[in-house]
Amino acid sequence: MSLTRVHNLSISLDGFATGEPQSLEAPFGHAGERLHRWMFATRYWDEDGGSLGVDNAFAERHTPGVGAEIMGANKFGPPGWQDDPEWKGWWGPNPPFHTPTFVLTHHAKPPMEMEGGTTFHFLDASPAEALATAREAAGGRDVRIGGGATVVRDFLLAGLVDHLHLVQVPILLGRGVRLWDGLEGLEESFDVEAVSTPSGVTHLTFTRKGTT
Amino acid sequence: MSLTRVHNLSISLDGFATGEPQSLEAPFGHAGERLHRWMFATRYWDEDGGSLGVDNAFAERHTPGVGAEIMGANKFGPPGWQDDPEWKGWWGPNPPFHTPTFVLTHHAKPPMEMEGGTTFHFLDASPAEALATAREAAGGRDVRIGGGATVVRDFLLAGLVDHLHLVQVPILLGRGVRLWDGLEGLEESFDVEAVSTPSGVTHLTFTRKGTT
Repeated sequence: MSLTRVHNLSISLDGFATGEPQSLEAPFGHAGERLHRWMFATRYWDEDGGSLGVDNAFAERHTPGVGAEIMGANKFGPPGWQDDPEWKGWWGPNPPFHTPTFVLTHHAKPPMEMEGGTTFHFLDASPAEALATAREAAGGRDVRIGGGATVVRDFLLAGLVDHLHLVQVPILLGRGVRLWDGLEGLEESFDVEAVSTPSGVTHLTFTRKGTT
Repeated sequence: MSLTRVHNLSISLDGFATGEPQSLEAPFGHAGERLHRWMFATRYWDEDGGSLGVDNAFAERHTPGVGAEIMGANKFGPPGWQDDPEWKGWWGPNPPFHTPTFVLTHHAKPPMEMEGGTTFHFLDASPAEALATAREAAGGRDVRIGGGATVVRDFLLAGLVDHLHLVQVPILLGRGVRLWDGLEGLEESFDVEAVSTPSGVTHLTFTRKGTT
């Protein structure tokens, strides 16, 4: 069974997955790196000295078993990237996806084949349509919804997410893009677990009932 | 040193401390009892069969060392209680406060002396003024800010809270009264700890830097 999964989506205590304004210089706005420091300190991110505890165990689940990613336009680049013919994402010539990767945008572009197995496809599609396309490309493996918060929320609202891994960071951003709006009662369809770790973050997993 | 403390303030994952609409029949609106089930299952609440683990340890901290409480009008009664001369709070003849208890309201009323040491005083005052009055009444002991969320937020915004204990319950209410609005950067003034427990909730403590 091919699942639809979200991993390592970091949010503040007040529920923001990014600050504002987002720009080339500040992809997460006034949040800076604060939402992701827990991950930078893991072996998953830092191969030389990162930690091997529970934060790393969660972080590493990002990759295995995933055959395609879907991301929102705001994850692929700063505002206006669609008008820059040279923009190929934040990640350099060898992006960390290594699978077909579908970018949701209203601006059609030809696919971009990168090194290491990543090919960016640009789709103007509903969540269900995008998921059908990505599922086909994933060749029986799982599909990751890569964010940002708006795209994850859209897929949650459409009932398309099987497994959601959030990391709640104990900061208050006050403004930005909120994950939770409009999701009243979401927990009724999921088994929810929470675990706080020595780094101070709390991992939350939502696993759709009946998935396992 | 007399501290200003908040205990057992339960919030949903999306940050609501109560649902809506609040009424005599449903003091927490559509949230019902869901925000407080963790507490009903502790020895603090259920003397005959409640649990004695970490949830109970936090719950019991509500009372010791507290010499006065400040609460908002919405905690004392349902909308319109100010116009009911017979309304004496939700808690019967012997309320669980056992100290002077200050209710913030724009409608002046004479004090109500209850059984067990609780006297309700009705104050039309700013957070700082109310705290000065309650501190005086507390006789050197601590002052508890009893909620609801609006009052706790007002005291946090005024920089008057020394210790804040929150309990995050893994439900999404979608609507109600949100605790966090306007509190960007709150964590900078506090040492923050998080601990998830077997009941599924996550306790968060904010302790003002330099307090201990």
